[in-house]
Amino acid sequence: MIETLNKAFCTLPGVGSKTAQRFVYHLLERNRDGGFELAKALVDAMEHVQHCNSCRTLSEKTLCNICANDVRDDTQLCVVETPADIHAIEQSGVYRGKYFVLSGYLSPIDGIGASELGLDELEQKLVERHIKEIILATNATVEGEVTAHYISNMAKQFEVQITRIAHGIPIGGELEYADINTIAHALSGRKNYT
Amino acid sequence: MIETLNKAFCTLPGVGSKTAQRFVYHLLERNRDGGFELAKALVDAMEHVQHCNSCRTLSEKTLCNICANDVRDDTQLCVVETPADIHAIEQSGVYRGKYFVLSGYLSPIDGIGASELGLDELEQKLVERHIKEIILATNATVEGEVTAHYISNMAKQFEVQITRIAHGIPIGGELEYADINTIAHALSGRKNYT
Ligand SMILES: [Zn+2]
Ligand SMILES: [Zn+2]
Repeated sequence: MIETLNKAFCTLPGVGSKTAQRFVYHLLERNRDGGFELAKALVDAMEHVQHCNSCRTLSEKTLCNICANDVRDDTQLCVVETPADIHAIEQSGVYRGKYFVLSGYLSPIDGIGASELGLDELEQKLVERHIKEIILATNATVEGEVTAHYISNMAKQFEVQITRIAHGIPIGGELEYADINTIAHALSGRKNYT
Repeated sequence: MIETLNKAFCTLPGVGSKTAQRFVYHLLERNRDGGFELAKALVDAMEHVQHCNSCRTLSEKTLCNICANDVRDDTQLCVVETPADIHAIEQSGVYRGKYFVLSGYLSPIDGIGASELGLDELEQKLVERHIKEIILATNATVEGEVTAHYISNMAKQFEVQITRIAHGIPIGGELEYADINTIAHALSGRKNYT
């Protein structure tokens, strides 16, 4: 039973046997109520959380809070890989448009193509809606770049501005500690200093 | 619902909001079955795992596997802070005696005294049983040392050898990277080199 719980925790990303053991002992020795609560929260979420019909993010409702919010700018669409990316961008507080969640990146080897990422739906949005700008906010990884490139190509047939979020040295980050790819990117993407 | 699950994960040791979010998204996007299985494993464990009647470790049975194992040496008793410590010692494969789990360390400020650590039971074992050696394997922390000292004092009234596990530079560890307390300990605990 302890072993089964340990193994179940190990299926979580980044959780090895040692960490799982710490979780198991903590719950059993100090917080059994917490264990029951976690179990209930898991069942509730697994059963009831679905995807937003419009942006595909995880949502308990047919339309997520952002899609249902009429104050948000309908002419900007920010394309991200995961719901966590929306969360991160929302916390920055600088974006007032809407989102589209791919739930991954193009990876033909894993059978993840345009339809798995909902690119038909995305194209449909460009056809139907008055989107003026599509912001490609996929990750700065090889896969994220390939995916951004693919979407950019698809979007070109529409009258829409296609932008990519900027990459470079993190704010507060020291050049000395940045990796070479980031430095190369930051240099080639340099702007006039006014 | 997503928020509730996130908060429930945050009650686990070392899990912050970011990690919890990664767990939640992983389960919802990629492994809902895993979410249900984790929930079931949690309920099973929280309901059925109890403490071994003899050594106080977590166990599904009245007597844990080690206590129920007649081949293990009944004359050696290794006192540890947590069930995880037993696991670690068992993996080293060098110990064939039995254990006693304190489930913590002396911490009067938190209301954790001798009875919370089962020291009455431990004393009773020394009275009843033919224990020849009690090995103090509490952690090399201030609290662990205080607890070891307390148990040592209690055990002195019995005819029992009282030992403390050795502390020093980890095997394979480099002196350069050891912290000063470990180095000081390793130096004062030096032995003749034959
Ligand atoms: Zn939405
Ligand atoms: Zn036992």
